[in-house]
Amino acid sequence: MTETIREGDFILLFTPEGGHYLLRAEDRIFHTHRDSVALSDFIGRPFGSVTRGKNGTPFYAVRPTLHDHIMKVRRATQIIYPKEIGIILVKLDVSPGKTVVECGTGSGALTLALAQTVGPEGRVITYEREERFQKLAQGNLERAGLLERVVFKGEVTEDGFEEKEEADALFLDVREPWELLAAAWQALKGGAPFGALVPTVNQVSRLLEALGELPFIGLEVQEILQRFYKTNPERLRPEDRMVAHTGYLIFARKVFER
Amino acid sequence: MTETIREGDFILLFTPEGGHYLLRAEDRIFHTHRDSVALSDFIGRPFGSVTRGKNGTPFYAVRPTLHDHIMKVRRATQIIYPKEIGIILVKLDVSPGKTVVECGTGSGALTLALAQTVGPEGRVITYEREERFQKLAQGNLERAGLLERVVFKGEVTEDGFEEKEEADALFLDVREPWELLAAAWQALKGGAPFGALVPTVNQVSRLLEALGELPFIGLEVQEILQRFYKTNPERLRPEDRMVAHTGYLIFARKVFER
Amino acid sequence: MTETIREGDFILLFTPEGGHYLLRAEDRIFHTHRDSVALSDFIGRPFGSVTRGKNGTPFYAVRPTLHDHIMKVRRATQIIYPKEIGIILVKLDVSPGKTVVECGTGSGALTLALAQTVGPEGRVITYEREERFQKLAQGNLERAGLLERVVFKGEVTEDGFEEKEEADALFLDVREPWELLAAAWQALKGGAPFGALVPTVNQVSRLLEALGELPFIGLEVQEILQRFYKTNPERLRPEDRMVAHTGYLIFARKVFER
Amino acid sequence: MTETIREGDFILLFTPEGGHYLLRAEDRIFHTHRDSVALSDFIGRPFGSVTRGKNGTPFYAVRPTLHDHIMKVRRATQIIYPKEIGIILVKLDVSPGKTVVECGTGSGALTLALAQTVGPEGRVITYEREERFQKLAQGNLERAGLLERVVFKGEVTEDGFEEKEEADALFLDVREPWELLAAAWQALKGGAPFGALVPTVNQVSRLLEALGELPFIGLEVQEILQRFYKTNPERLRPEDRMVAHTGYLIFARKVFER
Repeated sequence: MTETIREGDFILLFTPEGGHYLLRAEDRIFHTHRDSVALSDFIGRPFGSVTRGKNGTPFYAVRPTLHDHIMKVRRATQIIYPKEIGIILVKLDVSPGKTVVECGTGSGALTLALAQTVGPEGRVITYEREERFQKLAQGNLERAGLLERVVFKGEVTEDGFEEKEEADALFLDVREPWELLAAAWQALKGGAPFGALVPTVNQVSRLLEALGELPFIGLEVQEILQRFYKTNPERLRPEDRMVAHTGYLIFARKVFER
Repeated sequence: MTETIREGDFILLFTPEGGHYLLRAEDRIFHTHRDSVALSDFIGRPFGSVTRGKNGTPFYAVRPTLHDHIMKVRRATQIIYPKEIGIILVKLDVSPGKTVVECGTGSGALTLALAQTVGPEGRVITYEREERFQKLAQGNLERAGLLERVVFKGEVTEDGFEEKEEADALFLDVREPWELLAAAWQALKGGAPFGALVPTVNQVSRLLEALGELPFIGLEVQEILQRFYKTNPERLRPEDRMVAHTGYLIFARKVFER
Repeated sequence: MTETIREGDFILLFTPEGGHYLLRAEDRIFHTHRDSVALSDFIGRPFGSVTRGKNGTPFYAVRPTLHDHIMKVRRATQIIYPKEIGIILVKLDVSPGKTVVECGTGSGALTLALAQTVGPEGRVITYEREERFQKLAQGNLERAGLLERVVFKGEVTEDGFEEKEEADALFLDVREPWELLAAAWQALKGGAPFGALVPTVNQVSRLLEALGELPFIGLEVQEILQRFYKTNPERLRPEDRMVAHTGYLIFARKVFER
Repeated sequence: MTETIREGDFILLFTPEGGHYLLRAEDRIFHTHRDSVALSDFIGRPFGSVTRGKNGTPFYAVRPTLHDHIMKVRRATQIIYPKEIGIILVKLDVSPGKTVVECGTGSGALTLALAQTVGPEGRVITYEREERFQKLAQGNLERAGLLERVVFKGEVTEDGFEEKEEADALFLDVREPWELLAAAWQALKGGAPFGALVPTVNQVSRLLEALGELPFIGLEVQEILQRFYKTNPERLRPEDRMVAHTGYLIFARKVFER
């Protein structure tokens, strides 16, 4: 019942040295410094298969997950990472059939996660004023096969988001989220969750002030730290270094008055 | 376009003091130490509405999110928390239409998240040998309206999970996950992601050893720390105390040989 | 060569249940809910001795360390904790014979550490405008036998600290450290380290701004997190909860011009 | 009252770009990629002085602290860092006049801190079986002017440490501290604090087991995380990356029986 790898499918290729690469099963040779393997050799074989390279090295092809696609997006901006994306999905209640509004798109890492999770019945509307980021994100969504669920829009105008009381959730990843907060309020359905990510504490303070002036409740600020461990069972210990900061997450709920 | 609260709907009720309660819109009076409000007063009003209590206090009713349902499950066990659930969803590539196997169910917090995310086309199969936990989890799933997507099963037998090469993802939350690892391998489709949560480093070591003896690749161990901040913008600072530990997350991918 | 416990000496008493108490070896009975022991029984015995209670329970008496004295100070304020005190001692280069200025004294936890580390040849000058805190801190220093190394002063006047270019190090633990920064600069010797602790990010920003306007270099902001583990070797894991925040530490160096 | 820089004194030189270098005031030119300064120009000037380079760049010379000496030791091994050294000093009650035993010396970073803190009346006895590390550490101690307070010894023999019931505190930084634990117990005075640092959880478990078999009480395991912030007050945020792990600290107290 394992699906078979078809020509053009994305595979995540693991090398014995522990590297992994997001590639397509196509007519191309993949080289490591020790060996090489024809990517077309995987076609017709099930995901999870091992294929030997020219020198006998085993190469493993698995189906890429959302996590793999996120980590391998082509990027022109700082992306939102899985450690934050996970909690955003849960806090914003992103689920099949929902309508989610996002601004800005950036490289589209969060957009990918939103699009996969709302499913074919759902919809993601994402705003990005920089055309080159929009193009880049569209490419990333297309590669992941999720482009059709996403509506790309440009800059938010004076009239705010085009969606009015339509969003089941809304997320801001922009430099001055307070500027868009009234617009976000308008776009959200009553009671729906709002989220934002900002890198500095000064921005957190400013956004909290703005949230305090509009009908939002349930304000929450948090940060997520992820610590990886080396996987030697006899010498188990954390990695030497870790990401210390990506951003602060702010969440709230729209109400009609306060 | 905001949905209207119907009789029997779950609402998350916010009080002005900052508390929030998962309740139903029904013929019942909700009391705080300062005021009281008839929960039936919310029926017919949109989510996000404010209703005044007997003494004039504003009460806000919003639609509960997955996060709210998870935090308010009735529990007889340690539950998996949103900070872990978020990354589990992303790492296991849980998405609409998928088949996910889980063992053990416990109080069903992760089950809730899996069921919501696989959507009506997906399926969650969850094993739990303790009947009382199974009952409890079924109640929690039913309350969230997600019961029909979940198949509850009892103890894993000598023959392993009933699903063979069928699971798009599999998660173990049991005391001795290494005992079920060969069974988990059998249940997973080729290339599919495996995950587990264990509270002690000794269990991490033991599970890593077991993973090293079976055809699994891409081993990863991590922990997630979540730090909340007080939301006063003029005195922004982390909360005084935080959860220091729930468990270690282990992830891997099934391959057919190694 | 282990010293003998004399009448009136402080002892740290460990009970078999894992509790520990800072007490004096004196004519008094110490009660737990299971047993009791005469504290005078320890007199004349070496530190590290075990004495049996009335019901046979072993009680252990060790000499209290700086850490023990800090954790057991009588407090009327938030104290600075050992996790911060350690790095403060190292960053401020506190060592035998030095002159260290501190403001405010608070309950005297940091004062204790400074006084012990500068030794009998050194001097700690500590400012505190609240008389009741000053009294409290004096009691704490006296109990630890370190009172004579400490000079207690009241409020910092318009003329600043009385010490001019005299302090080998200076630490501010006050609500508005920027108000005292010019005075701190005057009190410090050239090149000497400055430190401060503040609980909110707003205060960090404000202090950094003030430091930027005076001849200080080597600015550094940090926070220290301390995670304890349960000590069962077969079920090794972090404690469930931890202190998430006490304060931010800011360090700099005085130079004569910039 | 600021001391004057004499020929041969160590200075910590700050460049306007934010770098800092541990150097001597001597007849030598120090070059950055933008400018150069004669280090002899600082001789006779007070610490904290600014000296202009050939191209007018300001260079600042301050007196190096313990922290600076630790961070700049010549190293052939992983060193113990200030974040751990601080809490070790406090937990082991290191203070003027004490006798502290350490094993192994390594590059001597902790040795430096112990030697400075015990003062001229105190004594540090440090064991190291690798002669080249011993040499290196002696050089580091000498440069910091602390060599005469330290007794260097080689491998710990079958008879254990030469000090018997003599150590006011003892610290192990070796690969298999459990092998030296009985010897450590013998060397410590009654009630005195014991400490160790190990990098892996497997070592923590093993050491806890060994501690459980000897008369030690007050067992404690902890780790220290240090997070630095960028110092721009208008864009205050943590550094992007941090040290995630150096080691686990284990502390206990010797008692005579249990």
